[in-house]
Amino acid sequence: MSGLNQSFSRQTPEEDDQQRLVCNHCGFVNYENPKIVVGSVATWEDQILLCKRAIEPRIGYWTLPAGYLEQHESPQCGARREAWEEARAQLEIDQLLATYAITRISQVQLIYRARLQTPEVSAGPESQEVGLFKWEEIPWDKLAFPSVLWSLKHFRETKDQPVFAPRQQSDAD
Amino acid sequence: MSGLNQSFSRQTPEEDDQQRLVCNHCGFVNYENPKIVVGSVATWEDQILLCKRAIEPRIGYWTLPAGYLEQHESPQCGARREAWEEARAQLEIDQLLATYAITRISQVQLIYRARLQTPEVSAGPESQEVGLFKWEEIPWDKLAFPSVLWSLKHFRETKDQPVFAPRQQSDAD
Repeated sequence: MSGLNQSFSRQTPEEDDQQRLVCNHCGFVNYENPKIVVGSVATWEDQILLCKRAIEPRIGYWTLPAGYLEQHESPQCGARREAWEEARAQLEIDQLLATYAITRISQVQLIYRARLQTPEVSAGPESQEVGLFKWEEIPWDKLAFPSVLWSLKHFRETKDQPVFAPRQQSDAD
Repeated sequence: MSGLNQSFSRQTPEEDDQQRLVCNHCGFVNYENPKIVVGSVATWEDQILLCKRAIEPRIGYWTLPAGYLEQHESPQCGARREAWEEARAQLEIDQLLATYAITRISQVQLIYRARLQTPEVSAGPESQEVGLFKWEEIPWDKLAFPSVLWSLKHFRETKDQPVFAPRQQSDAD
């Protein structure tokens, strides 16, 4: 995608009340919207699935299977797809564990509690390795993002509750 | 925004695995992502806040206060903002009532249970009128969208429960 003739400026389109990025060449209005990340805390017995990132950001650090929701996909389907892509894991979604708002980067995360249907997992193209960890085996000092820590903490709080209200956290909290 | 020179075609950018809309003039890649709608079932005593739409689609039909989450906004803040914009209502958010996936139009809705801080409400610019309705007074045959009906039904199911798992529904269900 080299040799582009891109030039956007901030303008307020007609019938809008906010500035948007508008292409100076073609007039295309790039409406920016928050993005949805879907993921899971997925368990086999008392072990939690984690993936060591093979891509930036935070390459080499451990994360939960999670990624951007695609067009025309439900959040539960997206969480299952990400677990398959990153860890070749097959999930059964239980319930919504938490919603996290990373307002700095306009991201809303929907993290589900899930069960692995089998303990067979292996690294997909975005993972260096994947593993099933007991609580005390989790590499706490090598977690990729604050929301991974939040998810694990909220999973621990609610793991014996069949029904609970999803936890909420924001980077502004 | 007349006189545009817009022309997009579906191409697969380098290092991508899906076709995207790419501007033929400037090479801009329009990554399309699902959009987040935030809203609420907001009550004052045994009455529910509804808004009669002053804009398309479904002008003249009744809806819950809801709309697109803005950049750098948490879902709870967005739900409060929409209630203010559409009904001049001040809310206290209780908990997440439901998540709805409208996969046909790539929309994820996060609907909260909320309490009005005062019963004073009035129509904002996107509403013809607003009102507080007891259950039996709800204009069931004049609701704007299926998700409004889902929200009311799920509110009714959970209204006496201090803790519950958010309901989930999809247009594919």
